[in-house]
Amino acid sequence: MGKVFVDITTSLDGYVAGPNQTLEEPLGRGGEKLHEWLFALKSFRERHGQSGGEENADSEILAEAFDRTGAVVMGRRMFSGGSGPWENDPNADAWWGDNPPFHVPVFVLTNHPRETLGKEGGTTFTFVTDGFGAGLEQARAAAGDKDVSIAGGANVIQQAIEARVVDELRIHIAPLLLGGGVRLFEDGSPAELKRTQVIASPAATHLSFEF
Amino acid sequence: MGKVFVDITTSLDGYVAGPNQTLEEPLGRGGEKLHEWLFALKSFRERHGQSGGEENADSEILAEAFDRTGAVVMGRRMFSGGSGPWENDPNADAWWGDNPPFHVPVFVLTNHPRETLGKEGGTTFTFVTDGFGAGLEQARAAAGDKDVSIAGGANVIQQAIEARVVDELRIHIAPLLLGGGVRLFEDGSPAELKRTQVIASPAATHLSFEF
Repeated sequence: MGKVFVDITTSLDGYVAGPNQTLEEPLGRGGEKLHEWLFALKSFRERHGQSGGEENADSEILAEAFDRTGAVVMGRRMFSGGSGPWENDPNADAWWGDNPPFHVPVFVLTNHPRETLGKEGGTTFTFVTDGFGAGLEQARAAAGDKDVSIAGGANVIQQAIEARVVDELRIHIAPLLLGGGVRLFEDGSPAELKRTQVIASPAATHLSFEF
Repeated sequence: MGKVFVDITTSLDGYVAGPNQTLEEPLGRGGEKLHEWLFALKSFRERHGQSGGEENADSEILAEAFDRTGAVVMGRRMFSGGSGPWENDPNADAWWGDNPPFHVPVFVLTNHPRETLGKEGGTTFTFVTDGFGAGLEQARAAAGDKDVSIAGGANVIQQAIEARVVDELRIHIAPLLLGGGVRLFEDGSPAELKRTQVIASPAATHLSFEF
């Protein structure tokens, strides 16, 4: 069976999105800057159907994460930014257009049932209404020998850590203070970790920890 | 004129002390573990009047911070854990005994006036009642060409960052989740930083950032 890993970018002050998230600015004020380390990368552009881009330490880290991922778990807000019944969600088709960058089955945690949504390039969005544990179980089955990525948002990552199902935390620290927004970590249970990787580029500091 | 730097250890979830700080457990529940990377080090032991200890990357980082520091600014709670009038503070003589590990002038921010307290080994504690800016000014004058260390707690560090007087953030990330306590960063102003150093040992990940 594969591993379960968290893979997320935070600011140095611990935010995964800035304040005032909107449909126009889904990562909140300043939040786009978190992901500046990604946009120029060959492995990022490939996944988004674009050619060219840089090959460097950042690009390798991203490619490695893509390669190991057999399924993804994410929260409803990460999927669409919305909440409540789907018919009232102006972004019910999500952020990523016809060919989302996942290319594997994605399990979206929501309170509102919906049929599975198939996209180009191998991405499917399956909507799970019976909680994080059920979503993880389905993701594990879909991933086979590959790993399950807990993509976010912060609340889903916190649930995964509290459920003690996370094998590895991969945290990319962007060199900025957002000064507010959505925190990666809220109050939870203490844990001792082992740091297994440190890779630094000018754009980000990539740290991996095992539980 | 020297630089102003922040030098502090946090958990991966961003806490500089655990929950429930008391006189018996000044760093809160689990908080002592933050500083495990320090206790065995030669440079730490020397400063605390002990012999022996390990010489490694961690030890060098600590020695470098000691060497550059000409004065220290800290908050009242870091000094004694107390608040209010000094005559009611059971720890008014602070945590560090007759020979504190600073060996330079220390400026303690407090609302309660008190005469300067001289200790062995070159440490003096001067009590500053007119705010962070005044404390920093006195520390700069005392440090001469050397640097001023903003030692904590979190609130004093936040004040220093908000005042835009910090040249460098040195953050030591201990490989653990405390799950609650005192956060290094609360809501503040956004800022873009430049990461200037990454040194990793099994015990901690040492990151430096310039503003």
